[in-house]
Amino acid sequence: MFQSFDVSTRPENGPRRLKHLRDAMRAHKVHGFLIPRADAHQGENVAPRDERLSWLTGFTGSAGICVATLKEAALFADSRYTLQAASQTDTEHFEQKNIPNDHVKDWLAEHLKASEILAFDPWLHSKGEIDALRDHLSKHKITLKPSANLVDEIWENQPDAPNAPIVPHPDALAGQSHDKKRKEIAEILRSKEADAVVLTLPDSIAWLLNIRGSDIERTPVPLAFAILHATQKVELFTNPSKLDKACLAHLGPEVTITKPESFSDALKNLKGRIMVDKNRAPIAVSDLLSDAEIIWERDPTLLPKACKNPVELQGSREAHQRDGSAMIEFLTWLDREAPKGELTEIKVAQKLEDFRRATNALKDISFESISGAGPNGAIVHYRVNTDTDRPLKAGELFLIDSGGQYEDGTTDITRTISLGPPPKDAVTAFTAVLKGMIAISMARFPQGLAGRDIDAFARHALWSLGLDYDHGTGHGVGSYLGVHEGPASISKRSHEPLCPGMILSNEPGYYKKDHFGIRIENLIAVNAPKIPKGGEREMLSFETLSYVPIDRRLIDPTALNGAERDWLNSYHSDCLKRHSDHVSSSAKDWLINATKPVETALKD
Amino acid sequence: MFQSFDVSTRPENGPRRLKHLRDAMRAHKVHGFLIPRADAHQGENVAPRDERLSWLTGFTGSAGICVATLKEAALFADSRYTLQAASQTDTEHFEQKNIPNDHVKDWLAEHLKASEILAFDPWLHSKGEIDALRDHLSKHKITLKPSANLVDEIWENQPDAPNAPIVPHPDALAGQSHDKKRKEIAEILRSKEADAVVLTLPDSIAWLLNIRGSDIERTPVPLAFAILHATQKVELFTNPSKLDKACLAHLGPEVTITKPESFSDALKNLKGRIMVDKNRAPIAVSDLLSDAEIIWERDPTLLPKACKNPVELQGSREAHQRDGSAMIEFLTWLDREAPKGELTEIKVAQKLEDFRRATNALKDISFESISGAGPNGAIVHYRVNTDTDRPLKAGELFLIDSGGQYEDGTTDITRTISLGPPPKDAVTAFTAVLKGMIAISMARFPQGLAGRDIDAFARHALWSLGLDYDHGTGHGVGSYLGVHEGPASISKRSHEPLCPGMILSNEPGYYKKDHFGIRIENLIAVNAPKIPKGGEREMLSFETLSYVPIDRRLIDPTALNGAERDWLNSYHSDCLKRHSDHVSSSAKDWLINATKPVETALKD
Repeated sequence: MFQSFDVSTRPENGPRRLKHLRDAMRAHKVHGFLIPRADAHQGENVAPRDERLSWLTGFTGSAGICVATLKEAALFADSRYTLQAASQTDTEHFEQKNIPNDHVKDWLAEHLKASEILAFDPWLHSKGEIDALRDHLSKHKITLKPSANLVDEIWENQPDAPNAPIVPHPDALAGQSHDKKRKEIAEILRSKEADAVVLTLPDSIAWLLNIRGSDIERTPVPLAFAILHATQKVELFTNPSKLDKACLAHLGPEVTITKPESFSDALKNLKGRIMVDKNRAPIAVSDLLSDAEIIWERDPTLLPKACKNPVELQGSREAHQRDGSAMIEFLTWLDREAPKGELTEIKVAQKLEDFRRATNALKDISFESISGAGPNGAIVHYRVNTDTDRPLKAGELFLIDSGGQYEDGTTDITRTISLGPPPKDAVTAFTAVLKGMIAISMARFPQGLAGRDIDAFARHALWSLGLDYDHGTGHGVGSYLGVHEGPASISKRSHEPLCPGMILSNEPGYYKKDHFGIRIENLIAVNAPKIPKGGEREMLSFETLSYVPIDRRLIDPTALNGAERDWLNSYHSDCLKRHSDHVSSSAKDWLINATKPVETALKD
Repeated sequence: MFQSFDVSTRPENGPRRLKHLRDAMRAHKVHGFLIPRADAHQGENVAPRDERLSWLTGFTGSAGICVATLKEAALFADSRYTLQAASQTDTEHFEQKNIPNDHVKDWLAEHLKASEILAFDPWLHSKGEIDALRDHLSKHKITLKPSANLVDEIWENQPDAPNAPIVPHPDALAGQSHDKKRKEIAEILRSKEADAVVLTLPDSIAWLLNIRGSDIERTPVPLAFAILHATQKVELFTNPSKLDKACLAHLGPEVTITKPESFSDALKNLKGRIMVDKNRAPIAVSDLLSDAEIIWERDPTLLPKACKNPVELQGSREAHQRDGSAMIEFLTWLDREAPKGELTEIKVAQKLEDFRRATNALKDISFESISGAGPNGAIVHYRVNTDTDRPLKAGELFLIDSGGQYEDGTTDITRTISLGPPPKDAVTAFTAVLKGMIAISMARFPQGLAGRDIDAFARHALWSLGLDYDHGTGHGVGSYLGVHEGPASISKRSHEPLCPGMILSNEPGYYKKDHFGIRIENLIAVNAPKIPKGGEREMLSFETLSYVPIDRRLIDPTALNGAERDWLNSYHSDCLKRHSDHVSSSAKDWLINATKPVETALKD
């Protein structure tokens, strides 16, 4: 079992550890220290040794920062973690602050005095982040100072850095050799007259070199740094013991392996024009590049990585075929077992993981499942544990958001299930959410548009009812890489043009606090531009990758227009076609029933 | 008749005048000069004395710039004017350039040498514009230098500055006294610790002081400058002879009138913190503010002017009632006369102006009518003249985009009419355009969203067919002010949040080159936020202001979904209700027929 549902936090350690941290601050003659939930690689998941925030405060959320001075400390978490942060930390010692209403910079300006010094670990913050903070605090004459990590100094038995093997990601799945990729990115460097680029994101490096790893959970990457030169040569900074002969052979003579301890020296010695990503690389990188001319540019692998090639897209289709069949077995089981009244959120999440494991192809789950029954479904980023585990009850909705990591692709799917006759307002809202999901699925739009330009399609039906959801409509998804991958997304905040090959989630939702949560999520891929029949201009559109029935018990067909109804019936017919020969006989029976067409919308 | 359709350009004057201009350049020891189609007030329409661009080049378009050096000259016009510019100018002497593909700065960098001087009239360019140009040309060591206007020096018989009377705009129409407006804007100044703001846009001044004028065509503003102090006092720079006693009484003791010649001195003497709009005020303003600390802020009247108050909204409704009845008389006449085969684009535009005049309330038309038959309708900004005047023929479409200036409101409406049985592709496209127009009309969306966030609603149906249009979906409209008013619009480029009270156009279209043009345009106003029945969150929505039938002969009802069909039938029923008692009996008969419900969409 990949997932654990134990309550692992130890808030009672907080005050003592905070005291030790303050001793370290005094020893270093500084007056404050920043403890972000971050590693040097900006990953959403971090290795146990990088879990400094939870070690210090008890808070285990995936984003947040603690700021500590000699007298006070505050924990900043965003709205999805407000309750969790308060329950996992000693709120007497750690003031609770909410992002984005409260600002770290304001708290610091208030709690530090002129001429005092705020220390930070330069490997855990980007230059963009520190520049903004320095800009604000300099007005208050507070100094920012890079320093050793003070938590590491006081953390007894801090886990070692992970040291999992690095394995080749075969060309047959990557669709392009790392030689070609290095050549392509080196061309970008030369076009910007850069001599090299410093890569600090593990998934950029994994993509570039066609390697994978298991240093952290859920995302199959090795933790490493790399320097790609305009000559196409790469210096990979990682423990050489992670690579066996086969992997070295895969990397070939143009990729040299150097132990991570040498990374700083390598940066110091780097000359010429060096490309660095201001918002993704740790500020330590640019500080160390003292002999180089820095070109601030976005990590050049981001866009080619996001635009999947035909082999990667085919891999994703196959991963979704496998994952979809597992989902159908799971939904069959759920519909049979739920009425018996013995299921709980944890049991269901475990069972779904079992069905995915039974494919014999599951490398990991792609994130901790969100398994929310009734009111728990209304907590957008709900993470069940043994304390919160809720039984699945008749008359309630059940929301499950989950995914798998397979060598050929990463999946992410949400289905909301009716447990017995659903409340009327749930049917109304579910149908509106479905209309939004269908609108994105069917959308055609010109090249050059960003997620922001089409986000409203997903919300149109909800807005008409005076409803909405407070998250993006979709995020990018990697190819056997991060389930959350930039640079594009479908949201009000996304200005990145959508490009052919990008895989995105399509997941509108609706959450009725203390009652129920609804989300319907498929993965979709941006198709190559094409002139629609009879049309004049090329349009982009989406290919749906996920084929798993949508609970018809929650759909009001009279609220669908003809095009929506046709899409739904055709989608369900495809679900049946794709999976009926690949599932158990009981699942096939369930599937036949679950994919029956919805009746004609008489209203029109 | 407000409009003239004469061919007024004299391209043959260009070469001789260009020669004189070059003599002036030599006399001033400069190597280039900029001749924008602009006045000191950034207006879309300019006074005859400011028509320097057309005087020099022959080009009469509403936007463009000529750049001249001692040897070469180029005329930059955007795509809507490409053909017109070429036909109106001597292309041997004025190289034709297209905005935005060609850039003035590139042309200048190419045609001027290092250490040469480019002169410009600092009253005709904003600081933002000159800064960007200077930034680029400094790399080529080309100097930008403010100078007297060299065209004015050589233009014999240049018309005088307009001197039309300034009249009060009554509080009963403005809805707020200028005293209250000055107080409101002065509060904004104080909140930014500014001592005064320099206002250079005539419609900002007209709005602020509740005055109107007729110095330029189509937009009822006086040309003037003003300084509003944080004390609420205003210095208005305009010829005192423009104001009679009644107007002086209206302005009261807190508004002082000073002749425009004193404006420069007033700026030189201004001290303290002075607000200037970098992108709207001429650079001369900030250059003259030598004793002041400049605060670069957007003109603070823009947003309150755009958000119409209830009195202005009611005025707009009444103006639209009047204008709509005139439109219905016109459409009745058109349907009766067109089959006789004697109408032309000019005759029709003149007749429509007659119907608007017959309301006895028309102060001006709000812009030159776009009257395009058949293929001429496909030219987005077509402006008919005696050379291009085309008969209205059976089997073709006819597009007419027009509007009126009434004391209580400004109108702008486009209808596309079928002359006899329409081509099938026209019906398909018209219906898709209509679906987009309806989608905006029915949209609900949260506060904070900008035009960009909902623009796709208007294009969705067209995109599905592989069609699109290359203009914005809607522009802001003033209250007896400019028919094109910022800061908000509905377009991919608009990031200005839509606010209650804003009046916008809703005008998707489709243009099939050399065949036909389609546009359907209503004005709409943003409603106050409201929670839809049964919903949870406040949503914005639009009130439709224009009520004139949409040609049912061009609609394929089977392509409408139920909601669209219901909107259309309800809209037509409202057209009938609103106008049937206010039009002639023949128009009433026409109206009854034109507003019949479309049949049920059997397809659904």
